[in-house]
Amino acid sequence: MKEILSTKNGLIKERKKLHKRKYREQEGKYLLEGFHLVEEAVKYGANVEEIFIDARGQKEWGTWVTEQVSTTYFVSDEVMKQLSDLPTPQGMIAVVQKEPATEISYQGKWLLLDNVQDPGNVGTMIRTADAAGFTGVLLGKGTADIYSTKVLRSMQGSQFHLPVIACDLLEVVPKFQENHIPVYGTELNVDAVQFNQVEKTAHVALILGNEGQGVATELLQMTTKNLYIPIYGQAESLNVGVAAGVLMYAFV
Amino acid sequence: MKEILSTKNGLIKERKKLHKRKYREQEGKYLLEGFHLVEEAVKYGANVEEIFIDARGQKEWGTWVTEQVSTTYFVSDEVMKQLSDLPTPQGMIAVVQKEPATEISYQGKWLLLDNVQDPGNVGTMIRTADAAGFTGVLLGKGTADIYSTKVLRSMQGSQFHLPVIACDLLEVVPKFQENHIPVYGTELNVDAVQFNQVEKTAHVALILGNEGQGVATELLQMTTKNLYIPIYGQAESLNVGVAAGVLMYAFV
Repeated sequence: MKEILSTKNGLIKERKKLHKRKYREQEGKYLLEGFHLVEEAVKYGANVEEIFIDARGQKEWGTWVTEQVSTTYFVSDEVMKQLSDLPTPQGMIAVVQKEPATEISYQGKWLLLDNVQDPGNVGTMIRTADAAGFTGVLLGKGTADIYSTKVLRSMQGSQFHLPVIACDLLEVVPKFQENHIPVYGTELNVDAVQFNQVEKTAHVALILGNEGQGVATELLQMTTKNLYIPIYGQAESLNVGVAAGVLMYAFV
Repeated sequence: MKEILSTKNGLIKERKKLHKRKYREQEGKYLLEGFHLVEEAVKYGANVEEIFIDARGQKEWGTWVTEQVSTTYFVSDEVMKQLSDLPTPQGMIAVVQKEPATEISYQGKWLLLDNVQDPGNVGTMIRTADAAGFTGVLLGKGTADIYSTKVLRSMQGSQFHLPVIACDLLEVVPKFQENHIPVYGTELNVDAVQFNQVEKTAHVALILGNEGQGVATELLQMTTKNLYIPIYGQAESLNVGVAAGVLMYAFV
């Protein structure tokens, strides 16, 4: 295993850039931190290019790492701090190629995210779609990049389990409808249909929207129907991740 | 309106201490930041003792503030930064008395949190209980303090809408059962009962547990039944806040 002990090392400087979306898009790869997530990447056949481990990581997973990946680096605690964005680094960071682009199948159950900005919400919603057995997730404009470290942490490896595709929702909504798949928007509006009053279908597209503004009006006007989750108490709204969970489980 | 322009001011030093749970418990009050939350506190008759506003707050809500509360302070941006724990302070911080202790009614629908540690999860779950029309929330040992700023932000004022009571869950579970109210634990165990296969009852107690360990075994052994939410995909589990939402909406 090669060693990198200086924070001024050129490779470290290059890899650190992957904290920026622009570089991830340019390079087609991202940083994945923590044994659990890296193990999941290997298990699902993701292209893990390099693994960096520190003293703690070496002790706990050194043998495992060298068995999985040919390019491994032992790094000092200071170097690991440069690569990590956590207050306490997790001992292991991998450089992983982004999942290959896939086509939308236009069958099964899809979750569509319109301008959902909070990385924790986006990650949780993808993980919930995975748990609920959804076919895939579509990320519309303005939605957080799934390869940011915060999304990766809350997604817990779901990017390896189901397709997550960036696209223009205005273009895909009509295609679901051409395939006779109902598209349901969501809104905080009692004129909408109560979520548990529509038929459970094997094929469905559910749109969840921005934390503050909800789903864009333009999209709400294109949908088959718009659903709402009734508020029985005095809360103004539900957290969007919770709302997505309630809706997705109502369709399984 | 009195002015405080120095970060060395004695009152500011005292109020800053309220970021610590120990001082909140000692003083029986807490810091509430942001116009929206302070407005909610006033609307629901909470005891708002003092309001601090900076130049931005003064401009936007100065008149409103002096109409609501007799003790108001204009503070410099530096002082506001001392009182706030946000990267960008929200222009207004109030000192509010904790909600008075209330008794558990042992009727209606209750959410019980066992050792839920993440403040964001605790706040979201209380907000969801509010939205779902639950009667109240019980906080067992190890659960995050609802008066910490992170819980307050994700709870969005629900502490004014329904009783949130700290207690020993081991003591209250038998009392629900004496009152013929079913108590459902939750576990990731297919030997448990699928959540949508139990009868919807008007009175119910639902226990959600720690993010990593789930509900304590001791509690699971005391419940009427234990429920699980099926995982159809490859995710290992659901976020606890999402799980709570799916379960609570299954009981309304």
